[in-house]
Amino acid sequence: MPLELAVCDYPEHVSRAEWLTFPARMKALGLEYVRIGEFAWSKLEPRAGEFHWDWLDEAIEALHAAGLKVVLGTPTATPPAWLIRAHPDILPVDVHGRVREFGSRRHYDYSSDVYWRESARIVTALTTRYGQHPAVVGWQTDNEHGCHDTTRSYSTQALEKFRGWLERKYSSIAGLNDAWGTAFWSQEYNDFSEIALHNLTVTEPNPSQVLDFNRFASDQLIAYDRMQTEIIRAHSPGRWVTHNFMIFFADFDHYKAAEHLDFVTWDNYPTGMLEFFAPPSTGEALKLEFARTGHPDFVAFNHDIYRGLKQKPFWVMEQQCGQVNWSTYNPLPANGAVKLWTLQAIAHGADVVSYFRWQAAREAQELYHSGLLRFDGTPDRGHNEVAAIAPKLALLEDALLPNKVVLLHDYESLWAYDVQKHGQNASYWAQVMHYYTALRELGVDVDIKHPMSDLSAYSVIVAPALNIVSTDEAANLESCVQRGAQLLIGCRSGFRQPTGAVWAARAPGPLAVLAGVKVKNFDSLRPGLTSRVEALDMSFETHTWNESLEIISDDVQILGTYFSDPLYDEAAVTTRPLGAGSVTYNGVWSDQLLRRLLPLMLSRAGVAHDLLPHGVRLTTRGTLTYAQNWTRGGVALELPAGTEFVIGTNLLEPYGVSVYRLPQ
Amino acid sequence: MPLELAVCDYPEHVSRAEWLTFPARMKALGLEYVRIGEFAWSKLEPRAGEFHWDWLDEAIEALHAAGLKVVLGTPTATPPAWLIRAHPDILPVDVHGRVREFGSRRHYDYSSDVYWRESARIVTALTTRYGQHPAVVGWQTDNEHGCHDTTRSYSTQALEKFRGWLERKYSSIAGLNDAWGTAFWSQEYNDFSEIALHNLTVTEPNPSQVLDFNRFASDQLIAYDRMQTEIIRAHSPGRWVTHNFMIFFADFDHYKAAEHLDFVTWDNYPTGMLEFFAPPSTGEALKLEFARTGHPDFVAFNHDIYRGLKQKPFWVMEQQCGQVNWSTYNPLPANGAVKLWTLQAIAHGADVVSYFRWQAAREAQELYHSGLLRFDGTPDRGHNEVAAIAPKLALLEDALLPNKVVLLHDYESLWAYDVQKHGQNASYWAQVMHYYTALRELGVDVDIKHPMSDLSAYSVIVAPALNIVSTDEAANLESCVQRGAQLLIGCRSGFRQPTGAVWAARAPGPLAVLAGVKVKNFDSLRPGLTSRVEALDMSFETHTWNESLEIISDDVQILGTYFSDPLYDEAAVTTRPLGAGSVTYNGVWSDQLLRRLLPLMLSRAGVAHDLLPHGVRLTTRGTLTYAQNWTRGGVALELPAGTEFVIGTNLLEPYGVSVYRLPQ
Amino acid sequence: MPLELAVCDYPEHVSRAEWLTFPARMKALGLEYVRIGEFAWSKLEPRAGEFHWDWLDEAIEALHAAGLKVVLGTPTATPPAWLIRAHPDILPVDVHGRVREFGSRRHYDYSSDVYWRESARIVTALTTRYGQHPAVVGWQTDNEHGCHDTTRSYSTQALEKFRGWLERKYSSIAGLNDAWGTAFWSQEYNDFSEIALHNLTVTEPNPSQVLDFNRFASDQLIAYDRMQTEIIRAHSPGRWVTHNFMIFFADFDHYKAAEHLDFVTWDNYPTGMLEFFAPPSTGEALKLEFARTGHPDFVAFNHDIYRGLKQKPFWVMEQQCGQVNWSTYNPLPANGAVKLWTLQAIAHGADVVSYFRWQAAREAQELYHSGLLRFDGTPDRGHNEVAAIAPKLALLEDALLPNKVVLLHDYESLWAYDVQKHGQNASYWAQVMHYYTALRELGVDVDIKHPMSDLSAYSVIVAPALNIVSTDEAANLESCVQRGAQLLIGCRSGFRQPTGAVWAARAPGPLAVLAGVKVKNFDSLRPGLTSRVEALDMSFETHTWNESLEIISDDVQILGTYFSDPLYDEAAVTTRPLGAGSVTYNGVWSDQLLRRLLPLMLSRAGVAHDLLPHGVRLTTRGTLTYAQNWTRGGVALELPAGTEFVIGTNLLEPYGVSVYRLPQ
Repeated sequence: MPLELAVCDYPEHVSRAEWLTFPARMKALGLEYVRIGEFAWSKLEPRAGEFHWDWLDEAIEALHAAGLKVVLGTPTATPPAWLIRAHPDILPVDVHGRVREFGSRRHYDYSSDVYWRESARIVTALTTRYGQHPAVVGWQTDNEHGCHDTTRSYSTQALEKFRGWLERKYSSIAGLNDAWGTAFWSQEYNDFSEIALHNLTVTEPNPSQVLDFNRFASDQLIAYDRMQTEIIRAHSPGRWVTHNFMIFFADFDHYKAAEHLDFVTWDNYPTGMLEFFAPPSTGEALKLEFARTGHPDFVAFNHDIYRGLKQKPFWVMEQQCGQVNWSTYNPLPANGAVKLWTLQAIAHGADVVSYFRWQAAREAQELYHSGLLRFDGTPDRGHNEVAAIAPKLALLEDALLPNKVVLLHDYESLWAYDVQKHGQNASYWAQVMHYYTALRELGVDVDIKHPMSDLSAYSVIVAPALNIVSTDEAANLESCVQRGAQLLIGCRSGFRQPTGAVWAARAPGPLAVLAGVKVKNFDSLRPGLTSRVEALDMSFETHTWNESLEIISDDVQILGTYFSDPLYDEAAVTTRPLGAGSVTYNGVWSDQLLRRLLPLMLSRAGVAHDLLPHGVRLTTRGTLTYAQNWTRGGVALELPAGTEFVIGTNLLEPYGVSVYRLPQ
Repeated sequence: MPLELAVCDYPEHVSRAEWLTFPARMKALGLEYVRIGEFAWSKLEPRAGEFHWDWLDEAIEALHAAGLKVVLGTPTATPPAWLIRAHPDILPVDVHGRVREFGSRRHYDYSSDVYWRESARIVTALTTRYGQHPAVVGWQTDNEHGCHDTTRSYSTQALEKFRGWLERKYSSIAGLNDAWGTAFWSQEYNDFSEIALHNLTVTEPNPSQVLDFNRFASDQLIAYDRMQTEIIRAHSPGRWVTHNFMIFFADFDHYKAAEHLDFVTWDNYPTGMLEFFAPPSTGEALKLEFARTGHPDFVAFNHDIYRGLKQKPFWVMEQQCGQVNWSTYNPLPANGAVKLWTLQAIAHGADVVSYFRWQAAREAQELYHSGLLRFDGTPDRGHNEVAAIAPKLALLEDALLPNKVVLLHDYESLWAYDVQKHGQNASYWAQVMHYYTALRELGVDVDIKHPMSDLSAYSVIVAPALNIVSTDEAANLESCVQRGAQLLIGCRSGFRQPTGAVWAARAPGPLAVLAGVKVKNFDSLRPGLTSRVEALDMSFETHTWNESLEIISDDVQILGTYFSDPLYDEAAVTTRPLGAGSVTYNGVWSDQLLRRLLPLMLSRAGVAHDLLPHGVRLTTRGTLTYAQNWTRGGVALELPAGTEFVIGTNLLEPYGVSVYRLPQ
Repeated sequence: MPLELAVCDYPEHVSRAEWLTFPARMKALGLEYVRIGEFAWSKLEPRAGEFHWDWLDEAIEALHAAGLKVVLGTPTATPPAWLIRAHPDILPVDVHGRVREFGSRRHYDYSSDVYWRESARIVTALTTRYGQHPAVVGWQTDNEHGCHDTTRSYSTQALEKFRGWLERKYSSIAGLNDAWGTAFWSQEYNDFSEIALHNLTVTEPNPSQVLDFNRFASDQLIAYDRMQTEIIRAHSPGRWVTHNFMIFFADFDHYKAAEHLDFVTWDNYPTGMLEFFAPPSTGEALKLEFARTGHPDFVAFNHDIYRGLKQKPFWVMEQQCGQVNWSTYNPLPANGAVKLWTLQAIAHGADVVSYFRWQAAREAQELYHSGLLRFDGTPDRGHNEVAAIAPKLALLEDALLPNKVVLLHDYESLWAYDVQKHGQNASYWAQVMHYYTALRELGVDVDIKHPMSDLSAYSVIVAPALNIVSTDEAANLESCVQRGAQLLIGCRSGFRQPTGAVWAARAPGPLAVLAGVKVKNFDSLRPGLTSRVEALDMSFETHTWNESLEIISDDVQILGTYFSDPLYDEAAVTTRPLGAGSVTYNGVWSDQLLRRLLPLMLSRAGVAHDLLPHGVRLTTRGTLTYAQNWTRGGVALELPAGTEFVIGTNLLEPYGVSVYRLPQ
């Protein structure tokens, strides 16, 4: 597969005459694919059953004639007004119990039977017409499933479907009562029909119920998407099907959602995401420092998640190429940012990077959002950066090799963790990013996988926050360690069973026999409330969360101790040999400590690592290493003799990115 | 017209015996007018059709007998309980879709036909009875239209009326689709009946729809008010009709709302407004420094807006004369504040200042609000300040001359700007006040007008934030410049068309040919993210918003450059001669730069200016200059020889105000 | 009565086999009572009319057999799902008008007739079965009435009942109109049926209406609870009945609620409450300093409130003994905290301290909450502290003598104050705690009582914030002063009448003739806006609230003056001899001034006092003095010769607590 560039475009947004000038310019810029159609339902079917194909016929022909390949989107993210007025119960209900109205997008309920039928109808019509067109090489289902809190609808139809889902899962109401622990607060049910939605309970709802509702809502969304892919495959043989996922998106299980797709894509908006996902503790400083590029690890983490879903190359379906309009602040990206983002994406496994969007919209919700072209068709700053990159992609390689280090991630742990944070400075993403950033600062390439996936290839396994651990997962990890892997377990792991109940034998549940420790007490620390751990001949400040560990196996070595704090037992960090590998348990949250602890394990596993200068990141794909300077200053990187420069800009330049072939 | 004082009073709040002692005391204090009746519906008509006039008859007679003139308010801001229970659909619906209940005030929907009918009925009854009473000199319609977010109701009757309004505006649904850009996100409509309200959309609504809804809601309110004025004029010949507007009020178009009134009034609460309208960036410091007087420019700006609506003297219908009860904090005004506010109001064009209220309310919602009298009828601090001013007003003059500098303001630009701020530190009012304050710090008197008004008299035209600019407005401005005016345009101007769509040729749209520049990129800057501009031989820090300018005319002179920032093209601030005048474009937000840029233009236009000491303001009305010290310290002002002191207190006193006649 | 320990337990949460091991362990730990059953409705009556007593029979027998006494809770805080589905109108309505759903707890409306009937039915069944069981020594009604904002429901049935309550109170609608001051804003009613709930008014509702609604809701709750106690008493002769109240709970009148109980209990969670009740101004520092113990005075104040309700010993029904799960942050308590809290409770009048809970819950909402045992039944840290205390309680004494100082507290003043704070940094609890803490820092023991209670025994009466004062209350206070008491009145006192209207003669209303002052002006100060008062030969900074005082009696001595502030009259703090006592009025808010003012009065009254070291508190019960070190360092306390150490830990230890018998 070649590495290629693409763009998102909307022929329906400008006049026919204006639009017809675009395909040739796209091709001239070096783009290969154009994604179109994903919001065009009202243009395709302006009235029930009345299809207007002409404009799309012409657009596809024009792109084809220009030598461009077409990715078609199904338009189901935006059911038209006539459909909503005919079937108002398509509309979803928000967490406050209010119907969410027509007038923007994603105004549908995944539990609406009417909407499934209507979606199948439009997808069938669209794929019947274009499924075998030679320009059409692939399909995107819908758009950004779940965006704007739409995974979960609190409607009566959602409740009905949820009851059915529960009945299928538990067979008997006794099973549900047992799993949810409904003996607590008299929550017992005699029948599935007695169950209500949890969004308006008097105080916090049952966390096992919330966990099941999240699973249900995830399943509904995935089944809906699968329904679309089946229709597409039936009518468009030989084309691939994908979906464009989102940044740090948490509301459905992406592992399951990826199963029925050929490959996955995601939408990469580095500056916008920084405003939303910078952690509260260090967030304001990060937001300022990385205002014009986003944070390297927030972007890279999402690349690694999406590469890991199917363990194969992915696309960036929407790549920011100028300012966005939807964040708290929307600054211009730095000069060089588009190059940096594009090469970073490729480095992390993207085969295609598709810019959003061709020309800035002049009307409606996104008129403050940029494109490759300005409102008047003149090239914007991003356009010029793309023009500089496009001719050089052929010099890069598409090989994708597994890394030696894997980080485990699981949406059910995320749900269980975040619905009961126990301290408002803690969160699943923050804890996972704490480990991911520490690895990336050490120059380590990381795969991200589900704990039940095949992990046999990895030398180092990092499990930052598997709040829920099943016995099967524990067995999977144990077999890897026995064969020689170094396993690192973070605090709050193995606290919960898949039902949402705690492991009665205490955390880390079934991981305790691997780690040789049990959690005696856990401690939630408000900002400013800290402790100290002595470890590896140094003293480290810990924050956010401490665990006091009880040693349950003779061969456990204590690496870090709460040397002076009577609140806790001695052990804060431990390690233990197991089979040909080892299991390390890190009961605290300390950035400096982690930066010293990880090298121990990496060294044991023979994984090269070296603390990088501030703001520098290295990513290796195949035989090429992408060195990235995410700072506004220049950085000097010492490279081994024999290093070959392939393409890129100088790292001495702000935001420079250089691709090297290191001597093997 | 003499300059006079007045007061708001509520005979229905105290016993008859107590109240009958008031008129003589009012007169003795030097008051000339008393406003009464504006919340008294339930006292006038305690049951449907059962009118009790006796108490109001007596009150009017007593005021008349004391030599006071009466301003009567229509009581429609407070429909009584019996009316609401009979017609619950009078109640408005809030932005969350909840019915807003009886129990406070303004509980009616401007789109309720029933309420129009009932309002007409009570206004007819009231004006029939008192329209020709010799004491009654004028009328106030309703009270503070739109207060408490009541301009916009999200009821089904509002939706019905909105659909009708749209149909009248666009004739065909195709016209609406085109104006709103509904091709975006499949928002197209086949029929006006398909349109829903935008308050509960899944994500942000269509900004053109919001713009039209704001226009519609504004039109509804104005038509309702006009209906009242027509009834009043029919029954009360020879009396004037006004309405009391509010501080920085943004929800309806006050230019249109003023058309059918004889003159306008507004309600001036300087300390309360400071808590709400101080800009986020500098707000806490301002709130502390000016806690006991309010900020001079926030008050003055509102005076200038309301003088500008009809370009004639106005009243302050409610003037704070002690602490208020409705703000976040409600401190006592400083000693001297009531004098300062009263003379400032006159300086800016008020002919009458009416204090709120005579005696503090002992019951219900406002019992923490002060009046001229305390609860027990003893004179409060404000009373004593009024007593000191009243006898001296005759020494002032009422002449009102147009100023040389005009600042352009437009409610549609405000709506377009604020619904899509693009950075949460930006807002229309903040940007406008940025320019207004800079002018006032230079001692310049400013008129405020709509961009379509007759601007031919002005030497300097400042357009801080005309986000929407029509071709007609551009033509109006161009003709002024051609005749010799100096025009200054602020960033974000001319970005949008009246439909809400952007100008495809880029900002400043139809102003580009005047300014000789086009905006290449705009940049939203979070707090702390700054840039530097070199201009006028100095270097300035910019914040909040930067624009990169493209020069499109040879005669443009670059005044300010982003000399070291590769993000931007060179030009940040430009000027260009045009006809007998000039057009300056300021693409950045920098307080210091503006304080240096404005003098350039003022000097070209021959407008005197001089940077005033901190906290000092000068305002000229006719031949008198009102020097105001808004600080808790004394200030020394150098005055030309021959300056005559007219009235006032010493500027060396905290909060002193001196009225001078400067040598001509 | 011996001093004893107890625990809360849930036999229904674990298996029968596991649970049967508990009673012997409880007894072995030194516990005497076990509270059970208060959330077990669905276990007792899984389907309408189908009772399952077997498990509870067995549990009570097992506890009895182990020598433990049983406290049974009525399970009405958690109506089961089958009941809610059969009668959905049991569900309450929240302040936004939304039905609050089943799925947590307290999902019932105190105004539901159906729920009263059903509650009576289950309480009858439960008490019929167990009312005379020898192990059952007492009853707890429901659980934490009003928790989660459930005192007030905004349902149509609540409205109906409220109208009836008003009709009974006022007889005629004229009386209501007069009391509420409905002449303001045309709020007059012709009939009780016209009255609506105030939760969705357009702007702030009528404060007198809110006051009456709060009274009504309080009365409903109390009548509901009384209904339960009557059934219990009928079926369980010789047993006591209590209820477990909450920390700083403000939504109902606890004085009235305690009347029908034998004694009161409350639920003491020191670390959790600190997060919620630390005042905004100093809160973050307090939250950090006292993160692991809570603040001594927040805890002690609640002890003193609950002791004061019936002026007799109370229980702590739920005592935190490890981390909680429901606060913003949930740290581990310090080593020693459980001892400290237990002895503090006894010192302040608790006869029994009952820990929450025996074993940590493994499922559902509270699985992050600790117990005496961990999830796996091993003893947690709290368990070990209890084991150390239990054997020593017999050395303490249960005598309870009245103190010499009383602080007056009244829920109606709280409601009136907090619904109109006039400055968001002020609140009733903050103002009351300001005085309470100053007294406790001086080592003074304080009783807390209602202003209408018998106060004749007190030498010093402190009335920090009686915002509403009736003439009867003033008379009660005057008689105490005449007989020799020193009375201290805080600012904002006597501002309102019981109707909610102000006292027309100005604050402090009927207290003015006692204090010899009237409030001329009151001033709300935002953070940073301060003034200075010269008093007692020092200068003090004041904040939050200042009052300017007018002297109305010749014998008033001015203690503190606004010496340099022209805003105010001279007097800020005054005192006046009256009868055999004195009346002091403190018009300002100043921590340092209060610390100097109180000793004046204490000395006059012959009450010993001495400023304690930071973080140290002394409490005397009977002849024993409990010295408490709430700091993480050691403290040295100078004690008189002859002091006898009774039990405890060394004050030189962090969080040490020593019980002494001082020489008499």
